[in-house]
Amino acid sequence: MSEGPVFGRVALIGLGLIGASIAHAARRGGAAATLVGWDRAEAVRDRATSLGFLDAVPATAAEAARGADLVILCTPVGAMGEAAAAVAPALAPGAVVSDVGSVKAAVVRTVAAALPDGAAFVPAHPIAGTEHSGPDAGFAELFDGRWCIVTPPPAAPRRAVARVAEFWERLGAKVDEMSPEHHDLVLAVTSHAPHLIAYTMVGVADDMRHVTESEVIKYSAAGFRDFTRIAASDPTMWRDVFLTNREATLEILGRFTEELFALQRAIRTGDGELLFDYFTRTRAIRRGIVEAGQDTPDPDFGRIHRGRAR
Amino acid sequence: MSEGPVFGRVALIGLGLIGASIAHAARRGGAAATLVGWDRAEAVRDRATSLGFLDAVPATAAEAARGADLVILCTPVGAMGEAAAAVAPALAPGAVVSDVGSVKAAVVRTVAAALPDGAAFVPAHPIAGTEHSGPDAGFAELFDGRWCIVTPPPAAPRRAVARVAEFWERLGAKVDEMSPEHHDLVLAVTSHAPHLIAYTMVGVADDMRHVTESEVIKYSAAGFRDFTRIAASDPTMWRDVFLTNREATLEILGRFTEELFALQRAIRTGDGELLFDYFTRTRAIRRGIVEAGQDTPDPDFGRIHRGRAR
Repeated sequence: MSEGPVFGRVALIGLGLIGASIAHAARRGGAAATLVGWDRAEAVRDRATSLGFLDAVPATAAEAARGADLVILCTPVGAMGEAAAAVAPALAPGAVVSDVGSVKAAVVRTVAAALPDGAAFVPAHPIAGTEHSGPDAGFAELFDGRWCIVTPPPAAPRRAVARVAEFWERLGAKVDEMSPEHHDLVLAVTSHAPHLIAYTMVGVADDMRHVTESEVIKYSAAGFRDFTRIAASDPTMWRDVFLTNREATLEILGRFTEELFALQRAIRTGDGELLFDYFTRTRAIRRGIVEAGQDTPDPDFGRIHRGRAR
Repeated sequence: MSEGPVFGRVALIGLGLIGASIAHAARRGGAAATLVGWDRAEAVRDRATSLGFLDAVPATAAEAARGADLVILCTPVGAMGEAAAAVAPALAPGAVVSDVGSVKAAVVRTVAAALPDGAAFVPAHPIAGTEHSGPDAGFAELFDGRWCIVTPPPAAPRRAVARVAEFWERLGAKVDEMSPEHHDLVLAVTSHAPHLIAYTMVGVADDMRHVTESEVIKYSAAGFRDFTRIAASDPTMWRDVFLTNREATLEILGRFTEELFALQRAIRTGDGELLFDYFTRTRAIRRGIVEAGQDTPDPDFGRIHRGRAR
């Protein structure tokens, strides 16, 4: 490939799973000429230095941002305002600022308020992650085939939006654009409510009187273990998500509870037909996800006996 | 290995995912000298015949059971009584009858009532499955490293219990014993409530006014797709599970709703500390499941980029 880098110097503020994966993926795709990064935690900066996925790990956020063509805020949502304020004085004229927050409306307000007038701010959210956290968890393929949603304010320069989109495409992602508010509602359905529900179910199982934790663990293959993966995600990140996407999450949870009560009533009254019809309908959406390349068609996510011939 | 088969002739009544997988696994492990099977649906019998995992597929359940040393009922829970009644007249003296139902107390009552006095009935439940159904979905490795719970009535001959346990071990499973009632409570936590919750969340997502189905599918990698796997399970099987394990399922769902409301209140009031503590606690149970060999430690169940070196 003869394409040059999309941005010259790219600074990553926050070096957890997402920040580290952006570095690996940008390296693989040649998306940046120089990659620098910073994290609030000294231990994380040291670890990132040893892992060697960055060209430099300066001691302050401002140093990292100085001279950068693109600064990406990769902190938990609740720390984005502080991160933006830390880089703001160091931003070069014409620098583009982006982020990877799972919540957009609140983050856009907070970050925009902290940036200098006229800074080109292009909020983004790559829809990808794993249950692991920290710089060691990062890897180049995380964004391959996944969607990255950009939610630019009306005033954002279209050239900056196009370059951020190109950057994400070079990392392996597909790019969509929508308003911050619509993003937050879509993610409340596809991510925030499912996470809270998974956390809740795992919490209930952990706190039973007549069923031991060892029983829950031994017999988890019956369905429960699928919940534990997303309920093992980073607690700081998720606390911030729920506190900043409060309205949309509560709206979806309200709908969920309503629906759950209807199914509970069907169980109580023995309405097998309602249950059967409901369970048939939900199969179709699984097929859609597999057809769209967003999950594997292998049984059990392919996690059992990968080597076996079928 | 010089071990002989655990049972001579084994008859499988019901040839879906579990029945077919038992046949494959018994063949692999040499657990049966002869394997025959029957299914209520002629199309399934024909398909099982072409797939060739059985020595014979007779036209009736009674023919399949005739002369069998072990008869395993592998139908949905709601059809177990009928299946037991169909094989009862053909049972040889000394034949052992077992099943694979996900619910035990109700099934044990129904099946025991249909069997002749003195039949050796050893109820069992292998804790394994995938989201796929039917004879094509079966494979030999399904039970490897998974638990099979036997719930023998006090009167069951211990020798029959031991042979059924040995049969399951030969299929790759580990065997535990408990009462039907305790089994049903444990499974309500680890399987039945999680399935109903997953079905509900997928149903909600499918029925949103402001979020399209195509958006739900595109952005499902943010957590939602983990729910869709178990919400794609066989509708008949799950309808029967909820109708027959009603009390325990409703009890767990009651606990779940109580807990969910507490977390919703924390979101509404902005209690970040409660959320953080809750989300930290639920991580531990995930580690326990991975350490117990009941799930893969790979990020994202290993479904992303299996080939990549880490």
